[in-house]
Amino acid sequence: MNFPVTVTVTLREGIADPEGATIERALPALGFEGVTHVRAGKSFHMMIDAVDEAGALEKATALAQRLLSNPVIENSSARVGDSAWGVA
Amino acid sequence: MNFPVTVTVTLREGIADPEGATIERALPALGFEGVTHVRAGKSFHMMIDAVDEAGALEKATALAQRLLSNPVIENSSARVGDSAWGVA
Repeated sequence: MNFPVTVTVTLREGIADPEGATIERALPALGFEGVTHVRAGKSFHMMIDAVDEAGALEKATALAQRLLSNPVIENSSARVGDSAWGVA
Repeated sequence: MNFPVTVTVTLREGIADPEGATIERALPALGFEGVTHVRAGKSFHMMIDAVDEAGALEKATALAQRLLSNPVIENSSARVGDSAWGVA
């Protein structure tokens, strides 16, 4: 069975994030006030063939740590389900 | 009140995704079989000051479309809540 899986990779706390800092600085000029702690990361969406949801999640977690992230400076998290959160 | 918001930006269907394709090709050599439809995207995490959750979501959706994505080739979605999905 195929499960949709989303892996998110973010920089660890304390690792400098110039992309996030630049976005945060640009926001007030565009009229967005009150947005802080902006951090930039990566997301990966895939279909994983597994016997059940737990198996898909296990495979996703392993590949997130081995291929999609650098565990020295990045955290990764995986969840079953697509990123369609109702807002297009 | 401050709400944690996650914005995900993905390439639209039909837009070439060389990063996702490269990851997909690399997976079998690392022992991961049965992973298909890999798509790479970006994720942004921030704190948004708003009166309620709906207000935070509205602000996040607007800034996702104006600043964080290119609506010609990318979809963006916003949700209130952090990306801690139980898997570290």
